[in-house]
Amino acid sequence: MIKVITSKENKQIKFALSLKENKYRKINKMFLAETYKSLEMALKNNVVVCTFSLCQIEGINDEIDQYIVSEEILKKLSSNVSPEGVVFIAKEVEIAPKKEEKILYLDHISDPGNMGTLIRTALAFDYDLVVVSENSVSIYNEKVINSSKGAIFAMPIKVGDLTPYLSTHQIIVSLLSDDSISLDELKVNDKFVLILGNESHGVKRESKRSATVKVKIPIKNIDSLNVAVAGGILMNKIH
Amino acid sequence: MIKVITSKENKQIKFALSLKENKYRKINKMFLAETYKSLEMALKNNVVVCTFSLCQIEGINDEIDQYIVSEEILKKLSSNVSPEGVVFIAKEVEIAPKKEEKILYLDHISDPGNMGTLIRTALAFDYDLVVVSENSVSIYNEKVINSSKGAIFAMPIKVGDLTPYLSTHQIIVSLLSDDSISLDELKVNDKFVLILGNESHGVKRESKRSATVKVKIPIKNIDSLNVAVAGGILMNKIH
Repeated sequence: MIKVITSKENKQIKFALSLKENKYRKINKMFLAETYKSLEMALKNNVVVCTFSLCQIEGINDEIDQYIVSEEILKKLSSNVSPEGVVFIAKEVEIAPKKEEKILYLDHISDPGNMGTLIRTALAFDYDLVVVSENSVSIYNEKVINSSKGAIFAMPIKVGDLTPYLSTHQIIVSLLSDDSISLDELKVNDKFVLILGNESHGVKRESKRSATVKVKIPIKNIDSLNVAVAGGILMNKIH
Repeated sequence: MIKVITSKENKQIKFALSLKENKYRKINKMFLAETYKSLEMALKNNVVVCTFSLCQIEGINDEIDQYIVSEEILKKLSSNVSPEGVVFIAKEVEIAPKKEEKILYLDHISDPGNMGTLIRTALAFDYDLVVVSENSVSIYNEKVINSSKGAIFAMPIKVGDLTPYLSTHQIIVSLLSDDSISLDELKVNDKFVLILGNESHGVKRESKRSATVKVKIPIKNIDSLNVAVAGGILMNKIH
């Protein structure tokens, strides 16, 4: 169904805007996303509830409601200063991993840009699963969704801890400490969990204790790399 | 000199706030930065004009004015939601490169977070120089400064183009095209320029034409990596 909305007070617009808050995302199990690339990935995964766009979008199933809105309304819905032209509501659906051999564990990642970028990178390096610790930023945060560039609609993601993998997987912790081996020396098992820690506080003590191997990227002149950059370097090597 | 400021109308505060605008940064050749880590790196480089903090900072030269301010004023000065406790004014000083062998060229990078992260990563991998194209985001943008984590105070950076390096350096372009070689096959010369392109539009045609070699990071499932992540993977390999 295609419908034109002209008023900001329209109940669909109000509902969409409510999804900017974590509380309403949790109640409705839905979230906001945007860009045509993300929409394409979300459609493949059958999670699109409805779309808001400046003009009609071709190739969308009739069962998905299409709302044609003004630029002003689109700007309100979007979290970008210059929205690309489409915002949509998607259902939270857990994508089941086909296997659980190559796992990325995100230990208290707090920056949504880093979280989204790490999910995008895990998909690019064909990881089976991303496990996100309870205290990390919500994966349905708008900035996470945006910076994942659609990967949120294709990557299996679970919220949880390391327990299920401790006896079966090699536990690789990224840690700039003296007893860490250099990335080039690392031998990777078939089943592994790669752990990346918080931007300021690093990897939690429990995660460190679980480590089968500690690994570091050799750097100079500065204390650390951005966690999404370090994650990219590690995943490019370990996959 | 240490002085307590209680009013938001104070002229030092007003001056500092004016530096949030590109126009006033250009006129005064100064910019705002924050966090103790950045301050430490800026002090080493003798570019600190004055500091604004909640309490006195030890170990700062008497010639640098220290302003003690309220939490409310610090929040106004800071670009973070929860400021770490210090904001400072720094002078724009071009750091001369010791040599110009390993160069990163940023071709129309528009996201300040990516720009800052790439400068931080170039410093970590001991690059000699970062060249930023004219149409890239200003390196003195607050978000660039913040995400560089102090690297802006240690990394030689120039605004310019490829011309000076075309006849002397290997020109490596990161490009996801069919005729690009895989990163593992790349042989790097002593003198090279690594080019990274715009987040949406990639590397400019002129840069592509200048390429001695095109290189790609093999990925699956998704069109591209974040440019700062791709830059990290490339710089980890090429340095």
